Amino acid sequence: MSQKDLSSLRVNKERLMKDIHDTCEWGKGERYGEHETETGMSRLSLSDTDKQARDWFHETTTALGCKVHVDAMGNQFAVRPGLNNDAPPTYAGSHLDTQPTGGRYDGILGVTAAVEMLRVLNDNWVETAYPIGVVNWTNEEGARFPMSMVASGVWSGDIPVEKAHNLKSVIPSNDTATMKSELERIGYLGSTPCSWESTPMAAHFELHIEQGPILEAEERRIGVVQGVQSYKWFTVTVKGRDSHTGATSFAHRADALLTTSKMIIASHKIAAKHGALASTGILNLKPGSTNTVPGWVQFSLDIRSPQDETVEKVEKECKAAFSALAAGDDFMNISSDCPPSTRHCTVEWRTDFISPATHFHADCISCVQSAGQDLCGSGQVKGKDIGSWGKLMTSGAGHDSVYASKRCPTTMVFVPCRDGVSHNPAEYSAPEACADGADVLLGAVVRYDKLRGQR
Amino acid sequence: MSQKDLSSLRVNKERLMKDIHDTCEWGKGERYGEHETETGMSRLSLSDTDKQARDWFHETTTALGCKVHVDAMGNQFAVRPGLNNDAPPTYAGSHLDTQPTGGRYDGILGVTAAVEMLRVLNDNWVETAYPIGVVNWTNEEGARFPMSMVASGVWSGDIPVEKAHNLKSVIPSNDTATMKSELERIGYLGSTPCSWESTPMAAHFELHIEQGPILEAEERRIGVVQGVQSYKWFTVTVKGRDSHTGATSFAHRADALLTTSKMIIASHKIAAKHGALASTGILNLKPGSTNTVPGWVQFSLDIRSPQDETVEKVEKECKAAFSALAAGDDFMNISSDCPPSTRHCTVEWRTDFISPATHFHADCISCVQSAGQDLCGSGQVKGKDIGSWGKLMTSGAGHDSVYASKRCPTTMVFVPCRDGVSHNPAEYSAPEACADGADVLLGAVVRYDKLRGQR
Repeated sequence: MSQKDLSSLRVNKERLMKDIHDTCEWGKGERYGEHETETGMSRLSLSDTDKQARDWFHETTTALGCKVHVDAMGNQFAVRPGLNNDAPPTYAGSHLDTQPTGGRYDGILGVTAAVEMLRVLNDNWVETAYPIGVVNWTNEEGARFPMSMVASGVWSGDIPVEKAHNLKSVIPSNDTATMKSELERIGYLGSTPCSWESTPMAAHFELHIEQGPILEAEERRIGVVQGVQSYKWFTVTVKGRDSHTGATSFAHRADALLTTSKMIIASHKIAAKHGALASTGILNLKPGSTNTVPGWVQFSLDIRSPQDETVEKVEKECKAAFSALAAGDDFMNISSDCPPSTRHCTVEWRTDFISPATHFHADCISCVQSAGQDLCGSGQVKGKDIGSWGKLMTSGAGHDSVYASKRCPTTMVFVPCRDGVSHNPAEYSAPEACADGADVLLGAVVRYDKLRGQR
Repeated sequence: MSQKDLSSLRVNKERLMKDIHDTCEWGKGERYGEHETETGMSRLSLSDTDKQARDWFHETTTALGCKVHVDAMGNQFAVRPGLNNDAPPTYAGSHLDTQPTGGRYDGILGVTAAVEMLRVLNDNWVETAYPIGVVNWTNEEGARFPMSMVASGVWSGDIPVEKAHNLKSVIPSNDTATMKSELERIGYLGSTPCSWESTPMAAHFELHIEQGPILEAEERRIGVVQGVQSYKWFTVTVKGRDSHTGATSFAHRADALLTTSKMIIASHKIAAKHGALASTGILNLKPGSTNTVPGWVQFSLDIRSPQDETVEKVEKECKAAFSALAAGDDFMNISSDCPPSTRHCTVEWRTDFISPATHFHADCISCVQSAGQDLCGSGQVKGKDIGSWGKLMTSGAGHDSVYASKRCPTTMVFVPCRDGVSHNPAEYSAPEACADGADVLLGAVVRYDKLRGQR
């Protein structure tokens, strides 16, 4: 096809939405509205419902003429042949697992749009220069097996496969399954080694909902993603002393939960000062009864910023602040009216995950930008921006594209989601936004294939 | 026996300590030191280990000549006959269940000291005017079945037996047992109705560790307890919105955990202002993943003060403060350096338990004071106090004596515990302190029996 013909390729919005909503029957979550599709998703990685979604992926892409293989992390790769099949495919894809109370678009849109891309290529008898692949990465969310993007991390060589296989399920809390045992159980422990060498990629494109409020607020249709924020994850343990709530005066307490409350507030103050983010999403305490002051609290801390140095600064200041707070030094004046305690807590930090700032590939970004411009036409240019249709942006969330970018040219396409809500049953992107994103994904992949052919 | 003879009755310290440590083999908890008795206790109510302790109580008191019966709440009553058995017994007792990470003295001291009292009466061929009873109350802690002192509450007529029977186990979290099913399972669903009418008491004396630091700090041997603090328990639910930690700016969050942190600090500030106590011992959140801002938090709030009016005041101010904090009004300046959020949380309160201030009976208090004075001799009198050996005090914690006091003259005896620590494996009272308390318990019961005989 000529450049003009390629530009005219468009996805079928209804078919795409049908794929999204049909596959979301597997792992349906909380209802938030009255329409039949107004439910969230709870499709934990390697669960029975994840297996159903995987089976759909396998059957659908096979029926579309792809050769599908599964690697040792359960990553699924469907490849549509090109004219020259001696070089690696250009991939599009994302993930089909969700948060325990997640929505219908995070990850799912990226995979279904890539499948829709295959359909459009087939419908139009497009012959690409090189093969085109679609990938479904395992356990991107890190919700069930507590390591996000673990399977792309094994693929890129950043995480040892044994470490990933041995990850224990944390949901449900009494589960004893490991990633490997669950991969075996549902029949997705593939024979191909999980690595960029065994399954090479020429490029990796990922369509995703923004998961933030910016595109919607600025009325932009497409986010052209230049990179991903730097972030670090920690587990913080505060130890005080269990004591009776009725018989222990404030002065005699070493209250691990009160101390943790101060730490959570301190982390927000420190992050805000640096224009960074700090968040606590998990908190457990012991012993856990109404009339016992908790002597033990453990919580997660997630620090993010576009700059690695800023994340380091926030970490350093939080460490100093938490130590001071544990020792009873309320230097931030958080609880100034409470009588000081003569007993103190201790605090320990464990670093769980480090994801430095990621910078995506200029060629990929250029293909997305070109496809976006082509789709959305000649919007007005605002300042130094790329046009009112789109926005150059940094992703706040991590994605499999972070690991993919270590081994091949990569970028992402964002589309607006309502109110910036994500990781929530009410997560929503309009069909028009989903189709916009799928059109740009398709356009970018086809352009990248053409670019490879021209080299 | 004459008054002089009665005054000379003393418990056998070694025998008492042996009972404590022998029975603590059932339900042994966390180790905190190297000595063989330096472990805590984890003997949840109606568990297999609680059954072992109950069986010991039954066998031991039966062997000591008591008639033992069990009521519909599993309360065990052992009665040693007196000269006149047409009137109700004078009881001593407490409870044998513990917190999940509790110690060896809370409750256990009160029951074993009462059993030791029976031994001393037998050894000395004491004939009391009226029968003397020992009681083991079920589920005082409210740790496994979430209602403290529930079985004495049914006995006093304050809690319907059906409500108590239907309480569901909360530890372990996946347990589906109810109080009734567990009473049946371990063979302690007695045929006697659980009520003060079916099992009347002439009086109720309870020896307990202080669970606070005052006696130790002031070097007093005995606390003469005049009453119990007023307290109220609440469950507070904060609803915000789940959102992605990386893609959601502080301004766009409705962070239920950050809001809860402010509430916990606010409750401490408000309670401190009124000389009251506020405590949070339970906190659960959803969805619970490192990269999701929690949209839902539920926590317990325990408010205490010697005065009912003060508890009401603290409750009222906390309600106003929590509503303001949920709505984003940081009027307490807790998190002044954080950028304000445009999104807010909601807060709901549920009242779980109300225990008004309790005032114990003058006759019982007088018997304890007399026994204490007799045991500890003529210490110097400090100010308006009863002598340096003891202290008139208000219990910070609730006890079965609160419900008992509604149906019969009641009081309690406190002994010092190390560092004021309780509800903790390291809870400790020296053998001398245990024996002091048991001697005063014995002396008070014998004096009360004599008082009844003189009427």
